[in-house]
Amino acid sequence: MAVRAAVAGASGYAGGELLRLLLGHPEVEIGALTGNTNAGRRLGALQPHLLPLADRVLRETTPDVLAGHDVVFLALPHGQSAAVAEQLGPDVLVVDMGADFRLKDSDDWETFYGSPHAGTWPYGLPELPGGRAALEGSKRVAVPGCYPTAVSLALVPAYAAGLVENEAVIVAASGASGAGKALKPHLLGSEVMGSMSPYGVGGGHRHTPEMSQNLTAAAGERVRVSFTPTLAPMARGILATCSAKAKDAVGADAVRAAYEKAYGDEPFVHLLPEGQWPATASVYGSNAVHIQVAHDEAAERVIVVSAIDNLTKGTAGGAVQSMNIALGLAETAGLSTIGVAP
Amino acid sequence: MAVRAAVAGASGYAGGELLRLLLGHPEVEIGALTGNTNAGRRLGALQPHLLPLADRVLRETTPDVLAGHDVVFLALPHGQSAAVAEQLGPDVLVVDMGADFRLKDSDDWETFYGSPHAGTWPYGLPELPGGRAALEGSKRVAVPGCYPTAVSLALVPAYAAGLVENEAVIVAASGASGAGKALKPHLLGSEVMGSMSPYGVGGGHRHTPEMSQNLTAAAGERVRVSFTPTLAPMARGILATCSAKAKDAVGADAVRAAYEKAYGDEPFVHLLPEGQWPATASVYGSNAVHIQVAHDEAAERVIVVSAIDNLTKGTAGGAVQSMNIALGLAETAGLSTIGVAP
Amino acid sequence: MAVRAAVAGASGYAGGELLRLLLGHPEVEIGALTGNTNAGRRLGALQPHLLPLADRVLRETTPDVLAGHDVVFLALPHGQSAAVAEQLGPDVLVVDMGADFRLKDSDDWETFYGSPHAGTWPYGLPELPGGRAALEGSKRVAVPGCYPTAVSLALVPAYAAGLVENEAVIVAASGASGAGKALKPHLLGSEVMGSMSPYGVGGGHRHTPEMSQNLTAAAGERVRVSFTPTLAPMARGILATCSAKAKDAVGADAVRAAYEKAYGDEPFVHLLPEGQWPATASVYGSNAVHIQVAHDEAAERVIVVSAIDNLTKGTAGGAVQSMNIALGLAETAGLSTIGVAP
Amino acid sequence: MAVRAAVAGASGYAGGELLRLLLGHPEVEIGALTGNTNAGRRLGALQPHLLPLADRVLRETTPDVLAGHDVVFLALPHGQSAAVAEQLGPDVLVVDMGADFRLKDSDDWETFYGSPHAGTWPYGLPELPGGRAALEGSKRVAVPGCYPTAVSLALVPAYAAGLVENEAVIVAASGASGAGKALKPHLLGSEVMGSMSPYGVGGGHRHTPEMSQNLTAAAGERVRVSFTPTLAPMARGILATCSAKAKDAVGADAVRAAYEKAYGDEPFVHLLPEGQWPATASVYGSNAVHIQVAHDEAAERVIVVSAIDNLTKGTAGGAVQSMNIALGLAETAGLSTIGVAP
Repeated sequence: MAVRAAVAGASGYAGGELLRLLLGHPEVEIGALTGNTNAGRRLGALQPHLLPLADRVLRETTPDVLAGHDVVFLALPHGQSAAVAEQLGPDVLVVDMGADFRLKDSDDWETFYGSPHAGTWPYGLPELPGGRAALEGSKRVAVPGCYPTAVSLALVPAYAAGLVENEAVIVAASGASGAGKALKPHLLGSEVMGSMSPYGVGGGHRHTPEMSQNLTAAAGERVRVSFTPTLAPMARGILATCSAKAKDAVGADAVRAAYEKAYGDEPFVHLLPEGQWPATASVYGSNAVHIQVAHDEAAERVIVVSAIDNLTKGTAGGAVQSMNIALGLAETAGLSTIGVAP
Repeated sequence: MAVRAAVAGASGYAGGELLRLLLGHPEVEIGALTGNTNAGRRLGALQPHLLPLADRVLRETTPDVLAGHDVVFLALPHGQSAAVAEQLGPDVLVVDMGADFRLKDSDDWETFYGSPHAGTWPYGLPELPGGRAALEGSKRVAVPGCYPTAVSLALVPAYAAGLVENEAVIVAASGASGAGKALKPHLLGSEVMGSMSPYGVGGGHRHTPEMSQNLTAAAGERVRVSFTPTLAPMARGILATCSAKAKDAVGADAVRAAYEKAYGDEPFVHLLPEGQWPATASVYGSNAVHIQVAHDEAAERVIVVSAIDNLTKGTAGGAVQSMNIALGLAETAGLSTIGVAP
Repeated sequence: MAVRAAVAGASGYAGGELLRLLLGHPEVEIGALTGNTNAGRRLGALQPHLLPLADRVLRETTPDVLAGHDVVFLALPHGQSAAVAEQLGPDVLVVDMGADFRLKDSDDWETFYGSPHAGTWPYGLPELPGGRAALEGSKRVAVPGCYPTAVSLALVPAYAAGLVENEAVIVAASGASGAGKALKPHLLGSEVMGSMSPYGVGGGHRHTPEMSQNLTAAAGERVRVSFTPTLAPMARGILATCSAKAKDAVGADAVRAAYEKAYGDEPFVHLLPEGQWPATASVYGSNAVHIQVAHDEAAERVIVVSAIDNLTKGTAGGAVQSMNIALGLAETAGLSTIGVAP
Repeated sequence: MAVRAAVAGASGYAGGELLRLLLGHPEVEIGALTGNTNAGRRLGALQPHLLPLADRVLRETTPDVLAGHDVVFLALPHGQSAAVAEQLGPDVLVVDMGADFRLKDSDDWETFYGSPHAGTWPYGLPELPGGRAALEGSKRVAVPGCYPTAVSLALVPAYAAGLVENEAVIVAASGASGAGKALKPHLLGSEVMGSMSPYGVGGGHRHTPEMSQNLTAAAGERVRVSFTPTLAPMARGILATCSAKAKDAVGADAVRAAYEKAYGDEPFVHLLPEGQWPATASVYGSNAVHIQVAHDEAAERVIVVSAIDNLTKGTAGGAVQSMNIALGLAETAGLSTIGVAP
């Protein structure tokens, strides 16, 4: 019997990518699609790449519309998920693709978002230590942010194995879809093409405490994160360049061994052969994570670079993977490790 | 029992896209992969997006290597397919993604390619009138060129319905992957990004006689084609803007009706709702064709615009679709109408 | 004594490009800068590439602010120029970069713009037959549209020399800056990158009657234009592919001779050597026009391709060139034929 | 009397950009142009954006051809400059845009380049402490690498003012022109567009010792550099994100003050107003450097981001600026702070 799924926020980039994946999921039937400002519009006008759903009409995000599904995905602006989730009852699986339930520390939430903290849900990054167990059978899932997905998968093995000091420096480049469909001047094609620029520099990006939370859990001590995101002239993809000071006596072999051990059995995280570095094009549209590590002897730093598709593994693919685990389906159902390239 | 497929020319863009599709095909098992200059190399180094095949090693393109498969795909430089095909015997399905067997007129071949004509195989564009019948049970398939696919699907219904005069004017934009992986200065990223430029202007492009062949067959009289291809700053996609003089008394309703009739039941060709125009992003990585028509009253011309992914429907997807028909499989097996966007 | 110039609409792409050129103009001093919704803001926040003007503050577009200048450039939304121009008096040079005063036929204006026609000013395309004479000493200039600039320069010599029939088919690709800074979903970077799409198909684009006006004047008889614009994934540039049926007995030599004659002495329009085709990257940021011609014997058509920078020769460079002529300055002052490439 | 300049290596991207700048230089006359593999070809076929030089023919790089000039620019592959320079005699100004004479430490050279060290010339980064004095009257100039230009200008003030610890972490994104016109598969447009990827990770990039040399000189103690370059999907531009641990008691005000002091009088280096971050598009084609600083209190790091055009300030503009100083011309002659945007 098919899993019946509703998607709240079906007109945005995250919602569109989720629908693309659910259309190929062997166990899922797509139910209600909602989108407040776009309610009443054909999906074909908003997401023309989703041909099989072109004639679907978006509805308003109300409890009635969302009722009667096995899983409800929330792709809403932050701060709106809690109210919707409360109305859905405890027996339906709610997968929140927004930020509301990711952080454990209420002070962090209030510092970065300026509103009361709604709570903390099981965290949808199964590759973390203990990550799968936290999701099995859960009725609530908080999907990680796109940057924290790329960064945590890059650095957690180094911290879990005690290889690096507790200060991480991260510079990441993201495609423009990471900023969503908001109509802002700096997101216009004429501005984005041919240009690289940073934003939220100096600790201001809201994904910083989430990264710190994950790295701290792996390290067993507070890890401070210096995070600089940059906007790159591409539609999709995150390339995260992450480094930390190597602890004394740590060498290249130990670093590589830690990553081979951490990801040897993971279906989606792939440590590249030595000498080959990740490229975001290779994971375009896929749920794969490509990772490579280096030990810079002169600088005494461990450098890890990861590439993901921000909309797939970074958002909608991560959501589907977590849903699969929560519902007891095959973890890889509906997900691919094959990128669309070139 | 799985269909066992070999791919000759697995290191190029066409070969890579074919493998991406075959990996998702429910009836196909991937056999030998060959690539002459790259023989001996890991596929993971050449096609890093194809993770499940990363450890496969390319072999040389020899009859021995290609023996023992149910289908052999040839993604070779033009002029090389005939010699390989001869050695494969009449019982194996050979799908040629090159140009060698597309043209019926030997003079056309010799004029545009400058070598003896190897012959003519059943043509892999099932949406043409009689197209499916020609492929059913065939052991040889000539996959159309990418531009002729986009242009023929755009204009054949107008010619078949007798709506337009026998001179077509076509300007098409293609992503850089259409030129393959050849190392030429004008294909460098620094040259391609931010630039549009034409090539083969004035009738010199080798796809011109193939378009004319298809339109002439539909019209029942010689159709002359003025074709200007342009190189666009994107990796994939073809946007073909096609027009011809409307015959007297032809109006917008007749034009739209002809296309609704032609494509109403087609699984991959989609006439967009009025007012919505194709964008190559919407068909990225998919086998879909998006089409829209207009009747310009002032200029008395019928204008048809089509968008395809040059590597998918324009090459590898068309090859898989034809293989499906030739082998009696479901025509849509392993193929999608869903684009990867944005 | 310097020419003192004011710019109304300094926050948009056309205004920004104009300021870039005026900063390098040896005879011009930049006076008032206005921008209604952005009045009160630093130019450095809106046009960060214009460092020497970073501390200038935009003012409101009022007669008082614009008074006391030798030339006033209007980069306003269409329909707003007439009211401003009236208040400036007959002795100041007014250069309108909008559409209001380009068309001679009031019916055309009303059909395409839906408002009363404001009038017709001398047309700022000096390369047209009689073009310079119309501008010398004029106090009013209507700068051509970007597409009509590219298309008219491509086709006028063929029509003026009587080489082609009176029906032209034009497909042009434009960078996204041609649509301005308007915040529309289809102009977002995520939508534009990697995609080609047409718009205004079937005669609906407002630049169509302007092209027809110019070609008709050259031909001495009504020329009908079929025009399809497409949006290309680049910030700047127009590539116009233009063709028309060759008249009987017209050959390749006559075509080339007509263009050599027309443009041999032009400072900005350059007929490329045979075999070399225009690329928009080659004219990036310059006032140059690159043109190449072909005679397709099989299709019996003359094909002309032109490349311009839509913001430079297509808008602000054309405006400066016309100002130079109107004021009796050197025509090339402040303008370059050198592109910024790659 | 004009300065007569020769350019050896005129067919590449660095040579082309240099010619673009020299064409606009009020004191320079362009003499011999050479290019070994392209000797005998028209420049118009190789650099079609340089219209005024289209009919120039490239010659071979010999002492005879280069004789009789006031300045000779070398845009040659590394390792070739010394032999050419020796033949030019001590009285001609030689500006080397390659790497040969940048490093002071012969061991560094041999480690990173694997050949004997040719020597050390005055270093063409006038904004460094003592930088101008070293260039005045010099007959030899080593133009800095593009990455070291962006990184040194970003971090030298912090080191010179003693604000940060002696370990710097740098992640930089470069447009594809930084790799030159070499025909390599990963530089094809299809590979570059839509993708970000790192290279030379872990200390292997040849620009690392040059950065360290500059930062060490400013700090007065050895500064270790962790440098990760990434290839971005754009033709031009470098965005360098640089950080180092803040020394105790250093606050945001001290950081900003140091940069205001360092660059307040510089003609090309511009510290942006607080809240505004650099974008490579803003410096496209210009010699400007846009810089912004942040003090991350939580991470206790100083973060500096700089944007340059790799071909202009990063190569050819830096060369012209140094030539101006060496010859006693106005330092800004022929150079602009105005970018071509959008």
